[in-house]
Amino acid sequence: MEKAKRTEISSLGEFGLIDRITQNIELHHTSSIKGIGDDAAIIEAEKTQVVTTDILVEGIHFDLVYTPLKHLGYKSVIVNLSDVYAMNAIPKQILVSIAISNRFSVEAIEEIYEGVKLACKKYKVDLVGGDTTASQKGLIINVVAIGEQERTKIVQRNTAKEGDLLCVSGDLGAAYMGLTLLQREKQVFLNAPEASIDLAGNDFIVGKQLKPEARKDVIEFFAEHQIIPTSMIDVSDGLSSEIMHLCKQSNVGCQLNEEHVPIAEETYNKALEFGIDPINCALSGGEDYELLFTIAAEDRTKVKQHPDISIIGEILDANLGVKLFTKGGNYHDIISLGWNSLKDED
Amino acid sequence: MEKAKRTEISSLGEFGLIDRITQNIELHHTSSIKGIGDDAAIIEAEKTQVVTTDILVEGIHFDLVYTPLKHLGYKSVIVNLSDVYAMNAIPKQILVSIAISNRFSVEAIEEIYEGVKLACKKYKVDLVGGDTTASQKGLIINVVAIGEQERTKIVQRNTAKEGDLLCVSGDLGAAYMGLTLLQREKQVFLNAPEASIDLAGNDFIVGKQLKPEARKDVIEFFAEHQIIPTSMIDVSDGLSSEIMHLCKQSNVGCQLNEEHVPIAEETYNKALEFGIDPINCALSGGEDYELLFTIAAEDRTKVKQHPDISIIGEILDANLGVKLFTKGGNYHDIISLGWNSLKDED
Repeated sequence: MEKAKRTEISSLGEFGLIDRITQNIELHHTSSIKGIGDDAAIIEAEKTQVVTTDILVEGIHFDLVYTPLKHLGYKSVIVNLSDVYAMNAIPKQILVSIAISNRFSVEAIEEIYEGVKLACKKYKVDLVGGDTTASQKGLIINVVAIGEQERTKIVQRNTAKEGDLLCVSGDLGAAYMGLTLLQREKQVFLNAPEASIDLAGNDFIVGKQLKPEARKDVIEFFAEHQIIPTSMIDVSDGLSSEIMHLCKQSNVGCQLNEEHVPIAEETYNKALEFGIDPINCALSGGEDYELLFTIAAEDRTKVKQHPDISIIGEILDANLGVKLFTKGGNYHDIISLGWNSLKDED
Repeated sequence: MEKAKRTEISSLGEFGLIDRITQNIELHHTSSIKGIGDDAAIIEAEKTQVVTTDILVEGIHFDLVYTPLKHLGYKSVIVNLSDVYAMNAIPKQILVSIAISNRFSVEAIEEIYEGVKLACKKYKVDLVGGDTTASQKGLIINVVAIGEQERTKIVQRNTAKEGDLLCVSGDLGAAYMGLTLLQREKQVFLNAPEASIDLAGNDFIVGKQLKPEARKDVIEFFAEHQIIPTSMIDVSDGLSSEIMHLCKQSNVGCQLNEEHVPIAEETYNKALEFGIDPINCALSGGEDYELLFTIAAEDRTKVKQHPDISIIGEILDANLGVKLFTKGGNYHDIISLGWNSLKDED
């Protein structure tokens, strides 16, 4: 096997590296007046702006043992675009900051940016700025995403109303099962490096973990069908955590029906194989990047036209609490058990 | 001495921490529609937007041995505001992402945010979002600053013209001498912990390093006097590096007159004490956060009304190169020797 080329970052320096990374970057939106190359990017806002930022840290949010760098670059953009879509807005620009130790080569950074650029192309966003610096240890990626929408169509978390229907796009828990599988295979590998990693037949859950997508299509569906959700949030920390945010901030209660929570067959079977109750993958898993939203009851028939949206519950008066109605016919309080890097660390 | 209270971050978790940090945050600008608490901040742009981001990494950009956390929070905002001012724009909003190891207590993070909030108050910017997460090692702060200005008044780097005057605000090299002193005193302390740290009489240079300010006043002066610089950049990596960016991107040459480069007496004397040629502190030091800009020759008298702006050179045809005219009457090529974290690391 040919040895991969390794160019030391120090041989280029910050500006040389930036020149190399930003080759061939094209700006597509008329709102992107000036991209990389000045003290700041210049953006001509055409509608109301939404801005979000997320920081991803090696060893906390990703493990490079099983995360290809290109996928990591892609995912770091997706998690931010998902936040923009969760406001019912259209992402237009991103800025990407990377801090890296000299363990990484220029080629490695180029791989990360290949993923970033791929996400830009697929989701039609312009890479307009960022920062590149050294780190003492590990890789840190901070992405900022800027989107826009007419003010009256921007959807927040705190506006769900009693009687609204609770809906979610796609299916839940797959990314968590993908992570669980990857972590087991990593352990197998660490215990016996000669053992072969067996991910065969698990493309679906592994793909959901390593290369998630954001629900651009759902936001486009809303626009086409004149649907404005009454509230919305993206599912990044697990369904239970997001439902709690939505209900708490809207000051409402909720009944979530277990039987309607969408879980893919692959996720379901893998959960059972690992001895996990599949509903817990959906409730506490996280990293689904699906959209959790509420709609007025009269929009039920409109939403039903989308094959990939499930109506999973109903918004109730706050006094009725936030409940899971199980397949067995019982009610349980939903508590926020989502992924939380600050609580997990020790 | 009373022992400082230490609350573990893990006892609060991400959302508890965010609740605690974001207490008492008020939004002042009518353009800040929605701040912290949703998937994204909502901003109603009133003019053309400029957006910049900078990532600060422990051990690369700051050393907590001599950097108080409150100062660090303050400075992390200032370096971004300086980039907004360098576009001749007015900063309005910031987003702050922090990744921290569990070596830090909740109280430590609150100190960082105290500095962030102090900068927000002084510079009239709204803290509208961010992200808080664990890190495996050390502290990383990423700040995004958003500003605005009428499109025709936004100033870029690439528009300097032959015959323009090269100007700089304030004085240069002080932050570098402050850093040099702090690093020496740290070494003294590490070699002999019982020795006392002696920073007496060095408030000026130490202050410039630990608690820099951004030149809001200069941008306000431009507005009052109807001055629009023909090009502008902030001095973060040293004068020589910024002059090179400005000349290269504008495709012009330049003569910089050493005798007009502003260096404070404290900086000058400390440089000599350390055996450093003072002009080199200005050329290669960095972290001054002053504004380097060019003006049309007819604006000379207007600029002269500001006591803290120096005319340090003239823009020439590109063929004449980028030259330093020394006090001794010699010409030297200016080469970019600025601070560069990616070249420094080893």
